[in-house]
Amino acid sequence: MTLRVALAQINPTVGDLAGNADLIVAAAAQAHTDQADVLLTPELSLTGYPIEDLALRPSFQDAVRVTLTTLAHTLAASGFGELVVIVGTLEQNDDNSSPHPLNAAAVVFDGQVHGIYAKHHLPNYGVFDEARYFAAGQSPLFVDLPQGRLAIAICEDLWQDGGPVQWARDAQADALLVLNASPYERSKDDARLALCVQRAQEANCPLLYVNLVGGQDELVFDGDSLVVNADGTLLARAPQFVTTQLTVDLPLDPHDLVPNTHAVALARPVRNRSEIPNPGIAASLTDEEETYRALTLGLRDYVRKNGFASVLLGLSGGIDSALVAAIACDGLGAENVFGVSMPSIYSSEHSVADAYDLAQRTGMAIRSVPIEPMVQAFHDHLDLTGLAAENLQARVRGMTLMALSNQEGHLVLATGNKSELAVGYSTIYGDAVGGFAPIKDVPKTQVWALARWRNEQSDPGPIPPNSIDKPPSAELRPDQRDTDSLPDYELLDQLLDAYVHADEGSASLIAAGYDADLVHRVITLTDTAEYKRRQYPPGTKISLRAFGRDRRLPITNRWRER
Amino acid sequence: MTLRVALAQINPTVGDLAGNADLIVAAAAQAHTDQADVLLTPELSLTGYPIEDLALRPSFQDAVRVTLTTLAHTLAASGFGELVVIVGTLEQNDDNSSPHPLNAAAVVFDGQVHGIYAKHHLPNYGVFDEARYFAAGQSPLFVDLPQGRLAIAICEDLWQDGGPVQWARDAQADALLVLNASPYERSKDDARLALCVQRAQEANCPLLYVNLVGGQDELVFDGDSLVVNADGTLLARAPQFVTTQLTVDLPLDPHDLVPNTHAVALARPVRNRSEIPNPGIAASLTDEEETYRALTLGLRDYVRKNGFASVLLGLSGGIDSALVAAIACDGLGAENVFGVSMPSIYSSEHSVADAYDLAQRTGMAIRSVPIEPMVQAFHDHLDLTGLAAENLQARVRGMTLMALSNQEGHLVLATGNKSELAVGYSTIYGDAVGGFAPIKDVPKTQVWALARWRNEQSDPGPIPPNSIDKPPSAELRPDQRDTDSLPDYELLDQLLDAYVHADEGSASLIAAGYDADLVHRVITLTDTAEYKRRQYPPGTKISLRAFGRDRRLPITNRWRER
Repeated sequence: MTLRVALAQINPTVGDLAGNADLIVAAAAQAHTDQADVLLTPELSLTGYPIEDLALRPSFQDAVRVTLTTLAHTLAASGFGELVVIVGTLEQNDDNSSPHPLNAAAVVFDGQVHGIYAKHHLPNYGVFDEARYFAAGQSPLFVDLPQGRLAIAICEDLWQDGGPVQWARDAQADALLVLNASPYERSKDDARLALCVQRAQEANCPLLYVNLVGGQDELVFDGDSLVVNADGTLLARAPQFVTTQLTVDLPLDPHDLVPNTHAVALARPVRNRSEIPNPGIAASLTDEEETYRALTLGLRDYVRKNGFASVLLGLSGGIDSALVAAIACDGLGAENVFGVSMPSIYSSEHSVADAYDLAQRTGMAIRSVPIEPMVQAFHDHLDLTGLAAENLQARVRGMTLMALSNQEGHLVLATGNKSELAVGYSTIYGDAVGGFAPIKDVPKTQVWALARWRNEQSDPGPIPPNSIDKPPSAELRPDQRDTDSLPDYELLDQLLDAYVHADEGSASLIAAGYDADLVHRVITLTDTAEYKRRQYPPGTKISLRAFGRDRRLPITNRWRER
Repeated sequence: MTLRVALAQINPTVGDLAGNADLIVAAAAQAHTDQADVLLTPELSLTGYPIEDLALRPSFQDAVRVTLTTLAHTLAASGFGELVVIVGTLEQNDDNSSPHPLNAAAVVFDGQVHGIYAKHHLPNYGVFDEARYFAAGQSPLFVDLPQGRLAIAICEDLWQDGGPVQWARDAQADALLVLNASPYERSKDDARLALCVQRAQEANCPLLYVNLVGGQDELVFDGDSLVVNADGTLLARAPQFVTTQLTVDLPLDPHDLVPNTHAVALARPVRNRSEIPNPGIAASLTDEEETYRALTLGLRDYVRKNGFASVLLGLSGGIDSALVAAIACDGLGAENVFGVSMPSIYSSEHSVADAYDLAQRTGMAIRSVPIEPMVQAFHDHLDLTGLAAENLQARVRGMTLMALSNQEGHLVLATGNKSELAVGYSTIYGDAVGGFAPIKDVPKTQVWALARWRNEQSDPGPIPPNSIDKPPSAELRPDQRDTDSLPDYELLDQLLDAYVHADEGSASLIAAGYDADLVHRVITLTDTAEYKRRQYPPGTKISLRAFGRDRRLPITNRWRER
């Protein structure tokens, strides 16, 4: 006897209850066509993830409850009542131990909710704050079908020892269904597969892992849903960064189920059907492709889910704005990407030429707004020198972009990279303006690597070779180079990786051989730029530790590594 | 026999370990002079509060440990070795149950640390994220002195049932010492006293409550340290918003102490001394004074602790900038406050006159920078109408302030109020620019109330009566009034109070009698302005729920109350 499970790798939108329910109904229709027994949807598929303080709002909780009931009716009325649908949803906590709701999986069958499993392990580190939002579930839920017993777990339940995986083993479950909202970060897919292999072996049954796909503010979910056998063999794996449905047949030996007080038996007929072909194992992506696609999807979904059709950005001729433009063209279509060249008296000829070359290569629109008259108007009335005069130019550009955005309705993109954001090498209200900052979590050395990789994918590549090869400059004063005030980016990024991602202090960096003055300078720059980062636009997290909710530090902070 | 305890209501700075240790040594010197037995300092007095992810950084943890050891030596070397000093500090968690450190109280005596108490209840709601940073302590610590037994609790330990208060009662403690980092919010002082009364009765012993004072980013700690007797009588209470030391004599009957495995006995000599006068009960402040002083201290500490000497702000002649100017003059001295009048072609004569009247009343500097030439320079090169043209004016003002800030070194203050911030009635990168936003948590109706209150405190009051009385206008187009696009502020603030502070949904607001269209409009405006708030400067929390860490919502969010 086989159990056929469909894993719905869908892209819900936070708060769009009706739209998300529609996605689940559509997935159920496909599962019905495929004669699946069970449809597994991701963590909080009905609400989107993360919903943050919406979880605590009574009116939202009520609306989710009503939506789930309606969804159950709709599924039955559409002829999918025999399908067991596992829906990620928000549920009331009935035991009064906590005022918080539950991060739950509802078992929908025959027009009704037959059981609720509540997430046991709540992550509260990195970007996660689930101890703020949810009460922890304390007991398992098993779904007993003619083919066998299904156990349920939700995301972090898999990453922590004890609890749901052990419960599945103890109850002799025949399959472990895992609902996930697991955001992308570098190499997460490798960690995820290794974990699923380990937990399947521990649970002693096949493990079916379904993940969200899509962007939500600073997070992007990469899908990568997968199925492993009890012995850890990978049976099937979905591609990353696309919505898809993975349907697998699990051969199960019929056997008597051990009685269990947490089991819900569903009386489903078992029908004959021909085997469904194994969906196969999606090819894994290179690091560059994976990152590039995460950035593309993160941007696309931020723009679309917030109701924008198009984006606007300044094109300096440099590598950062060129990469952002390429990502935007790939994510939104070049016809929805609008560039502005804003030369100043310090801009070199190649800056303007490279910006126009970029536009020609990608097919995006470009226009030119020289900033000198506006800059001069400020100089006529204010006595500005040095940094104030440099920042003025960046801010006239920022204002120009915002004015065009207000006039024409495009979302402005900030083009700063993570290395700049770390050391404060950007002008607040200048190049930092924007609704979204696509590469804010990408270190400069990785910006170059992604640009080179992207250029190899098409002929001609979107990015002017000159933008890749020339030394970086902000061009806010004559003959300026980034290296006038910063170390080489190779060295800078190594230091930032150790300080920001690995939380190493100055002593261990100096012990590792870095120059002490350089270490102190980079760390001090990073510490004192916190106020700028706090007002920076959101952007897609791709690293192990992004600035923002992933790394929380006070602005007022006299601690200095010494 | 009496126990003499000094409560050090001090103002540490986050991360300034050496400076904070100096504050504790200075408090110990005073306690020594006063012949106190015990010096009680606030929660995390050695590190400042909140330290956020610094808590998890190994180099910081090491530095705190070294600083505590040095502090113990310094206290002994200074002749204060006989004083029992309770220091709020970060400690390693030795039991391996969690990788997180402990939010601890160290008992320092005779040059050494004699015991560590770890906070048991960790708050993880509102502005607090302590489940992210700390492991919870699981056992009490008692300090046995010749006068009796002291129990220790830390802040949230008092706000939750069970644990430390019960432990104190069970061990027949003679006093309960409570270290706090309790941020100010409206009416917090009333809740605090009622809680201390209740817990003293439950613990069946006097309760000594010491709180931090001072500003830290968006939080301001109000002090309000207090002592209540076992029967709940208030014995002494320190004033809010000032550093002070409260020293009290507790008469204790000598008695045999019940053996307890969690008790540390300290062999201190008991010396004869004359009674110290009761420090008395500080007069409680009116709501307006309390809020005004919270805002003044919050601003002053943000400016000073971040190394600025002076502030700069735009003076529109309106009530918001006038109140911010008054707060800045009171907090920093008028000689450190610099105003800029930036009239446009839409500015009325009274706007400029009222701004100059404000400067004359307060003694602050004012200069005029008409914005028309800069605005015109943009219009000459960009085709801007409607909202784009309105925002342009606000942004030229923002740029002007930032340029002067860069040139002269002042911190820019944003002058927006909470009602505007809620509904998005502000221009991002325009009037929203600044390093700090002193009244961002003050609803417009409260802005007026505070202005009236402040004007009653001196003659002449700092705020021009005309700024208080005239109808509010952004003056970005001819004859504009706030009420063109917003309801009356009385009504708006009522709705926002229900929606933002009380988390009421639209259904309950409409049921309460508010017009349905108005409810939907205000809620939609508030929901869709989240992206602006995310880039707004920090400002002092005074309400039950401030925007920011107190109320966390996604930007990408299709949930609409309907």
